[in-house]
Amino acid sequence: MGSIHLPSHEARLACRKNQLTNTAGVAPGYLQANLLILPAQHAADFHDLCLRNPVSCPLLGKTPTPGDARFVQPSGCIQSPDFDIRTDFPQYRIYQNGKYLESRRNLLDVWTSSHVGFLIGCSFSFEDALTAAGLQPRHQRTGTIVAMYRSNIPLLPAGIFTGGHCIVSMRPYRSDQVDRVREVTRPYLSTHGEPVAWGWEGAKQLGIMEINKPDFGEPQVFEEGEVPVFWACGVTPQMAVEAAGDRIKGLVFAHEPGHMLVTDWTSDDLDKLRPGII
Amino acid sequence: MGSIHLPSHEARLACRKNQLTNTAGVAPGYLQANLLILPAQHAADFHDLCLRNPVSCPLLGKTPTPGDARFVQPSGCIQSPDFDIRTDFPQYRIYQNGKYLESRRNLLDVWTSSHVGFLIGCSFSFEDALTAAGLQPRHQRTGTIVAMYRSNIPLLPAGIFTGGHCIVSMRPYRSDQVDRVREVTRPYLSTHGEPVAWGWEGAKQLGIMEINKPDFGEPQVFEEGEVPVFWACGVTPQMAVEAAGDRIKGLVFAHEPGHMLVTDWTSDDLDKLRPGII
Repeated sequence: MGSIHLPSHEARLACRKNQLTNTAGVAPGYLQANLLILPAQHAADFHDLCLRNPVSCPLLGKTPTPGDARFVQPSGCIQSPDFDIRTDFPQYRIYQNGKYLESRRNLLDVWTSSHVGFLIGCSFSFEDALTAAGLQPRHQRTGTIVAMYRSNIPLLPAGIFTGGHCIVSMRPYRSDQVDRVREVTRPYLSTHGEPVAWGWEGAKQLGIMEINKPDFGEPQVFEEGEVPVFWACGVTPQMAVEAAGDRIKGLVFAHEPGHMLVTDWTSDDLDKLRPGII
Repeated sequence: MGSIHLPSHEARLACRKNQLTNTAGVAPGYLQANLLILPAQHAADFHDLCLRNPVSCPLLGKTPTPGDARFVQPSGCIQSPDFDIRTDFPQYRIYQNGKYLESRRNLLDVWTSSHVGFLIGCSFSFEDALTAAGLQPRHQRTGTIVAMYRSNIPLLPAGIFTGGHCIVSMRPYRSDQVDRVREVTRPYLSTHGEPVAWGWEGAKQLGIMEINKPDFGEPQVFEEGEVPVFWACGVTPQMAVEAAGDRIKGLVFAHEPGHMLVTDWTSDDLDKLRPGII
């Protein structure tokens, strides 16, 4: 019963009822998650893809039993017994043969007995740490959705998942703030960690030419002296699905960018979530 | 005393006495390791670099206590009490301010009380699996050192380690063998796993234009119908050191490419070495 009053659980209930959509700034201190759900026959390849690309696809949890939408492993990720991966994100996207079909408020009528879900760390998780350091992200202040771009960073292939590239999220900061921004986000290894590139030169290296035309989310306003700072983004798996195309048999589900799951992991769990054997 | 007769231990002793140099094909079934040793003040950044780039820099072990060249964590990595990270590779390279200075047979007179060593998985580890599948790598048959190239795959930054790129190793195979080659090496997540690119188009995507001019090792002969197949390579940390330049204070040591440490991990330990929390 205790978990019923966690801010993370309250947030999930609000998302389930569609009272909440953009989850940026919601339930500070709790780690937020991106989603990818796919048929069990492709789960091992996708799991490998995440382990090989942990900056863009850091694993926070999984529904390991095909068809069971409620049991998440490890148990620390979701502690409330009423959880349902088909309803507790504010909004979902459906893919078929690697192509976006439509968006839905829940997955109750498309979920099958073979589906397996992966929860992937989200950069919203470190935004309250940035705010506490006097570095509140622009999109939080303006109530917009963070800007996201396709980059040329290759996703290292795993099984059927070949040919994908990383998506990056972008927050504007002054050049003299970049070192501090890197420091604050560095411990968040399991939610994308420190930036992958920064500055106008960094944008060019990522192949991003039009900063005012993000591929997902909304454009962000730059104040004088500010430069773009880029983090890997958990929308990346959706690009892997696009690249895999009709090698994926069956429907794939993902979250709507910016519309995340609030998990019960907190920033105190970051050490526990560190990948690797040492 | 039991470990004294392990083929891995025998190989280390032979390397220590410089009776062995190129370790390809040595002690089949045992995982081999690349090396990077650096001053303790940079160890946390380098550790993060490995966790963020596990395909090129998969961690197999570490000498965690500054100045202690003999104690390796986890204990399964090296089981013989006579181990010494300063002598048990066949050959070493010394770097200062990111620049290669010289090669040495051991590090006894340059090692300091602040040095920390990292053991990084090596693709030699899966070569006996390839051989068992009838896919023996060309360089083993010809007794040459595997060809290695600088690629344009960015190394995702961590602390002082910014601006580096991945090194890749290359083995020629027929196009119709690539699927099987990918399958055989896929389980070896902790020693670079499956290829990062293949085919002549793949070479171009990595920015490799002259296949007969490797940056390390020796050129490989292509037979009719063969294409290059590329794996991430544990020489990559040396490129990260080059890119960090004079941000690194103190001497850095690495192995000579192709001259590896034979560890006591075997292919039976691959599941245990899998990164990630699930």
